[in-house]
Amino acid sequence: MGNSFGHLFRITTYGESHGGGVGVVIDGCPPQLEISAAEIQFELDRRRPGQSKITTPRKETDTCEILSGVFEGKTLGTSISIFVPNKDTRPQDYSEMAVKYRPSHADATYDAKYGIRNWQGGGRSSARETIGRVAAGAIAKKILKQVANVDIVGYVKRIHDLEGIVDPHTITLEQVESNIVRCPDSECAQRMIEKIELIRREGDSIGGVVECVARNVPKGLGEPVFDKLEADLAKGVMSLPASKGFEIGSGFAGTLLTGSEHNDEFYLDDTGTVRTTTNRSGGIQGGITNGESIILRVAFKPTATIRKEQRTVTSTGEETILAAKGRHDPCVLPRAVPMVEAMVALVLCDHLLRHQGQCHTLKP
Amino acid sequence: MGNSFGHLFRITTYGESHGGGVGVVIDGCPPQLEISAAEIQFELDRRRPGQSKITTPRKETDTCEILSGVFEGKTLGTSISIFVPNKDTRPQDYSEMAVKYRPSHADATYDAKYGIRNWQGGGRSSARETIGRVAAGAIAKKILKQVANVDIVGYVKRIHDLEGIVDPHTITLEQVESNIVRCPDSECAQRMIEKIELIRREGDSIGGVVECVARNVPKGLGEPVFDKLEADLAKGVMSLPASKGFEIGSGFAGTLLTGSEHNDEFYLDDTGTVRTTTNRSGGIQGGITNGESIILRVAFKPTATIRKEQRTVTSTGEETILAAKGRHDPCVLPRAVPMVEAMVALVLCDHLLRHQGQCHTLKP
Amino acid sequence: MGNSFGHLFRITTYGESHGGGVGVVIDGCPPQLEISAAEIQFELDRRRPGQSKITTPRKETDTCEILSGVFEGKTLGTSISIFVPNKDTRPQDYSEMAVKYRPSHADATYDAKYGIRNWQGGGRSSARETIGRVAAGAIAKKILKQVANVDIVGYVKRIHDLEGIVDPHTITLEQVESNIVRCPDSECAQRMIEKIELIRREGDSIGGVVECVARNVPKGLGEPVFDKLEADLAKGVMSLPASKGFEIGSGFAGTLLTGSEHNDEFYLDDTGTVRTTTNRSGGIQGGITNGESIILRVAFKPTATIRKEQRTVTSTGEETILAAKGRHDPCVLPRAVPMVEAMVALVLCDHLLRHQGQCHTLKP
Amino acid sequence: MGNSFGHLFRITTYGESHGGGVGVVIDGCPPQLEISAAEIQFELDRRRPGQSKITTPRKETDTCEILSGVFEGKTLGTSISIFVPNKDTRPQDYSEMAVKYRPSHADATYDAKYGIRNWQGGGRSSARETIGRVAAGAIAKKILKQVANVDIVGYVKRIHDLEGIVDPHTITLEQVESNIVRCPDSECAQRMIEKIELIRREGDSIGGVVECVARNVPKGLGEPVFDKLEADLAKGVMSLPASKGFEIGSGFAGTLLTGSEHNDEFYLDDTGTVRTTTNRSGGIQGGITNGESIILRVAFKPTATIRKEQRTVTSTGEETILAAKGRHDPCVLPRAVPMVEAMVALVLCDHLLRHQGQCHTLKP
Repeated sequence: MGNSFGHLFRITTYGESHGGGVGVVIDGCPPQLEISAAEIQFELDRRRPGQSKITTPRKETDTCEILSGVFEGKTLGTSISIFVPNKDTRPQDYSEMAVKYRPSHADATYDAKYGIRNWQGGGRSSARETIGRVAAGAIAKKILKQVANVDIVGYVKRIHDLEGIVDPHTITLEQVESNIVRCPDSECAQRMIEKIELIRREGDSIGGVVECVARNVPKGLGEPVFDKLEADLAKGVMSLPASKGFEIGSGFAGTLLTGSEHNDEFYLDDTGTVRTTTNRSGGIQGGITNGESIILRVAFKPTATIRKEQRTVTSTGEETILAAKGRHDPCVLPRAVPMVEAMVALVLCDHLLRHQGQCHTLKP
Repeated sequence: MGNSFGHLFRITTYGESHGGGVGVVIDGCPPQLEISAAEIQFELDRRRPGQSKITTPRKETDTCEILSGVFEGKTLGTSISIFVPNKDTRPQDYSEMAVKYRPSHADATYDAKYGIRNWQGGGRSSARETIGRVAAGAIAKKILKQVANVDIVGYVKRIHDLEGIVDPHTITLEQVESNIVRCPDSECAQRMIEKIELIRREGDSIGGVVECVARNVPKGLGEPVFDKLEADLAKGVMSLPASKGFEIGSGFAGTLLTGSEHNDEFYLDDTGTVRTTTNRSGGIQGGITNGESIILRVAFKPTATIRKEQRTVTSTGEETILAAKGRHDPCVLPRAVPMVEAMVALVLCDHLLRHQGQCHTLKP
Repeated sequence: MGNSFGHLFRITTYGESHGGGVGVVIDGCPPQLEISAAEIQFELDRRRPGQSKITTPRKETDTCEILSGVFEGKTLGTSISIFVPNKDTRPQDYSEMAVKYRPSHADATYDAKYGIRNWQGGGRSSARETIGRVAAGAIAKKILKQVANVDIVGYVKRIHDLEGIVDPHTITLEQVESNIVRCPDSECAQRMIEKIELIRREGDSIGGVVECVARNVPKGLGEPVFDKLEADLAKGVMSLPASKGFEIGSGFAGTLLTGSEHNDEFYLDDTGTVRTTTNRSGGIQGGITNGESIILRVAFKPTATIRKEQRTVTSTGEETILAAKGRHDPCVLPRAVPMVEAMVALVLCDHLLRHQGQCHTLKP
Repeated sequence: MGNSFGHLFRITTYGESHGGGVGVVIDGCPPQLEISAAEIQFELDRRRPGQSKITTPRKETDTCEILSGVFEGKTLGTSISIFVPNKDTRPQDYSEMAVKYRPSHADATYDAKYGIRNWQGGGRSSARETIGRVAAGAIAKKILKQVANVDIVGYVKRIHDLEGIVDPHTITLEQVESNIVRCPDSECAQRMIEKIELIRREGDSIGGVVECVARNVPKGLGEPVFDKLEADLAKGVMSLPASKGFEIGSGFAGTLLTGSEHNDEFYLDDTGTVRTTTNRSGGIQGGITNGESIILRVAFKPTATIRKEQRTVTSTGEETILAAKGRHDPCVLPRAVPMVEAMVALVLCDHLLRHQGQCHTLKP
């Protein structure tokens, strides 16, 4: 059941790096939403390989096709199927990895769990599986926008030790998309790009941190006690390939404050709305949104597949050396930005529908 | 549906701080497991209030009763119900909080979501709800122990800026329990205790980091792509009250390494088992356990409820000042240790059963 | 996971015939619903043993206690826990059944599945487990009543070969409750009662058919393609002890008509509402309610536990003879009526919330 | 969420009669199962339109493509995607039904629920959606066969008032497939075929009953209390288009027996296995399989879409007359046989994995 995510707005994905293609089925989408393949393609283009000199050179247009669930430009309320065929596959690049396990990759654990794996390009563990998430996320974003003008903006906050300065309250998609590393601090972005290119030339890789903000989120989303919004957000982004850490609001740094320093004091704004003077809660208190911006951060490790030589073992039980071939991102961060946004959108959309179901049936 | 957790090994909890009591129903527990109320009580005693001078003085023995699902000392395979009545309630302590929202607590968001809340002692948002998790976790731990000798040990890694030195590969429950703050670095523990007492006297609170290790975990647990083990672990611990961040293995610090520095190289040990020379993956690769120890960290913010005066608003729309009464932990960390362990055990046990179901039906 | 039912409005039950008691946790209940223990007790009293001379003489008041989720008479939106202790237990009556499997009962299959069973009074397979369903159903009924004035009325349609004449469009709860067999055809009811008493004296048992109608159900409930409303209703009632068959609308008899005879033609009523001239569909078309009354029937077999001698085997592998002791219903039908109503209410309430979530988020 | 079915072995379907195609995603399939497109195609061919003179003449080869989850002829353990494109679509045939609701079809209720529908060929309510079920069912059947030599055989038991004589204990697939109506009583089958042809010429339709047997089912499948096996079977088959009733074992007729007549007495067979002398339980007692054959029946109503004139209304609120065009089955029964088998297989396979997970983790 691990290939489904969400409850009322629920997605199920499939597909491997080098099979027929990858796709997603979306169940529970509200009916009569206007949606086009172009709107979905916009997000897929932000995720696709080969989009810039600092991503993998694999040439995929990732052109999506809506197979069901949309009629005359509108959602039907029944299950939506979106498919993206694989085009530029090179299984031969992976023949060495058919027997040699890549360190810190999923090769060995897939074999341990299933006793079989599609070794071509990582199979199901390839970041290519995130296409379905990003496609479904495009629809979730549109619903959130339409219902409450919700804005979800992700960006690269840090690459290795280079950290950008970004104001989550004002940052726009256009600013994020203004450079290929997706760090809207343009001066820092330039240094990030240079570092990634350097690392790539060395046959190595680096990681970093993506930050994501969701603004205008309605109050009341999230469910005690296990489906607290931050718990579902954590699960969503920690299921992305290469993620190693998650923070909401003040995160780990917040543990260095006392309660009196950390608490977000309440006040009433001009309209009489309850607001907080600070936002260390990151928009969520007691697992439920409070109307302030949701702010979260995700740590992504350096890409596991590198050209540099590493010691490893084979599936047949011999120690060996691997210098991985294939086409890989030297740094996943630029392409991880739309993935993080998608997961945030999926979580929020699911909870939006759930909240409507539970709390607006008796009092519409 | 937010009050259930897990799929095959599934728990559902209920109860408020000041209602009749709190409890848990466990569905899907393997039959014929020997279990006693005493074994569950052992874990509840580690969680209960009033256990030391640095926790809340609320006097609860948290004595559990097994209402169903166990017969002649063994599980029946049908649903297990465990109940703990509330004894030492003082609703009058909360009369001021019936109208004044505690900053960074759940008062305001519960009202926003539900239009109603049990203001006595935090209601459902009270950490008292974790009793059900810890009780069910005791059973999950026993299953894991019996099947694979799995050891789950949590401890306080840091209080505010005081960080202990602990070796996750050797640390034992006895060492953790050797002091009241549950940091097995005894010298550091002493300073932590002093700091917590100081903070309490000031009417303030502090936070910190719990680290947890799971040893001897079988290879193969976790499911691509959404139910990666780290994703479910993240959801589990981020659903605990006051948690603000999660890390697996190298976590955020791992983003400062290159791929060649970060990757865990493989080797074959004496028995021919595939092992890694380092463990920056934290025991999980591609979402699936690799047999190395699972190591994770959780950030807990300083307790929201403090005696110090804070600006806030009332539920009737007026700005005001609150100096919270009631009995609260100046620092949740010591009592959070068994909670983190319980969530880790619940996630592992659920995935153990799921793995057995999917991967050992054709090849038992 | 078999002890939970529903998705948004979800119940989890526990408890055996002879353990500490039985209960239910309700997750996802809308907040601010006024509900009292008395309203729940009303339904439990219709289900309880010992209510008349034609039911089991076990003396249980089945008095319920609300342990959580309700505050000052209103639901909180968080999980509701309702508990009913077992009082009048006689484990000694079952000592023979500890080794001898009752034919057509669950003794042998529980042993085969779990390798263990609580042989006292049937354990978890006892109809006593339906207390949780009926308690939760009382809340579901109230929500449905409040939102759309939905009326759910079940009644005994047939006992053995005695079939009553009942008009589902006008039948009332009062008429159903006017006699102890719950068949509102009073003349037929009298003969049913006599037959049950006769059968009881013979140490035998009989079965029959419960019919249930739900009126004023809003259009639009039910989800293609697996969660069609009739599919979820079928699952709900077929999970009741002793049920052997399910029909919706024309049911099996409808297969003897041609399409032109069977189809429900549409017309517009005075208010311009789309209605059907007949109702062979039983209120559901394409898995979705059409606004007409839902009408369904459930077959209940004769009670498995009888005093008459039967050939059977022991758990230790010997053929033997059993004449069952214990206190049992000679006919489950009168007490099955509130159980069927409860399952119908639970299904409708869950789908009401789901429909609200999916179809009223974009267009409230 | 209504487009998914099952828990551990879980399918999600999508597609409309006249969109790009229909398909299924299977999550949780055991790894290393040998499966080919041809094996799946075998079952799809039994379901496809145009297979004989008594089915709809729509020309679809229903050729399936495995898009993911299978590698070198074996399942990977990750999600399997199977797709069947729509080829022979004639939307123009349905232009009248774009405004006129077909009596007893899903047109009006889809509009009521979603405010939109794909009126071409019934959209999602078309029986074409069952392709995904049958494809997934082929895999489920293979697993059941491999693990326990389970045989699932469905057949037409009755068409209108013509009932065949069939022995469920010996009937084979070959016998069922020996004629186009799939009733293995060949003399009766001939009369059924004649009747269907007559009805078709009259522009009318008829229904009937499918019976299905599952032999060699292991003991222990099914979960108290809501996921009793008969409850999940009922849900599975009652979610099929046109189904109106369900029976397990003795069904409705069993209500005419007394307990002493109805109970299945136990005995020990030559191998010492606990068996029953009769099988009125239909292979399930207390919701759990007892090792005897599972026998169930499903009532299918006459096809709703008929050429004969019927009174109806338009979506714009006018009363009118409809004589439906399009290509439809005069009787769904022959093609319903593989659908019923598929649902039975899916339920059994899911419960097989669940049982393995819960009951064979501690005691493999």
